[in-house]
Amino acid sequence: MYKVKVFVTLRESVLDPQGVAVKHSLHSMDYKDVSDVRVGKYMELTIEKTEKDVEEQVKEMCNRLLANPVIEDYRYEIEECVAQ
Amino acid sequence: MYKVKVFVTLRESVLDPQGVAVKHSLHSMDYKDVSDVRVGKYMELTIEKTEKDVEEQVKEMCNRLLANPVIEDYRYEIEECVAQ
Repeated sequence: MYKVKVFVTLRESVLDPQGVAVKHSLHSMDYKDVSDVRVGKYMELTIEKTEKDVEEQVKEMCNRLLANPVIEDYRYEIEECVAQ
Repeated sequence: MYKVKVFVTLRESVLDPQGVAVKHSLHSMDYKDVSDVRVGKYMELTIEKTEKDVEEQVKEMCNRLLANPVIEDYRYEIEECVAQ
């Protein structure tokens, strides 16, 4: 069994309205030292171990569904868990 | 300057409709080995260095705005960056 962590963020060149909104809220709560906020998605997947290459599967899932390759970047961490 | 990564996830006990929807989509795309999906938020904050304790500030921001303590858990990673 694998535990996969996927991080999806907007590309640097893409405006992040959510991040801007969060920053303004933090400023209005007096956290003026916050100079930038970027908001993205964080997913934890549990994948059963099979003969297929898990990394290939994760890349495909990211490119086809979990991330929008036009405006988003993604990275992932794959951890194999030994079933108790 | 600090780069702070914040991970906000729904508590295990809380139903994750988004995660269920993503899992069904992955299954319909033939990724049947995916047994569970949890979807959360991932934020990258840039915080200027001051005399205040950055970790205290991050905890406060998480508890007051970035996470909903009733249904969400959060964790964070703080990295100090030396300005070039």
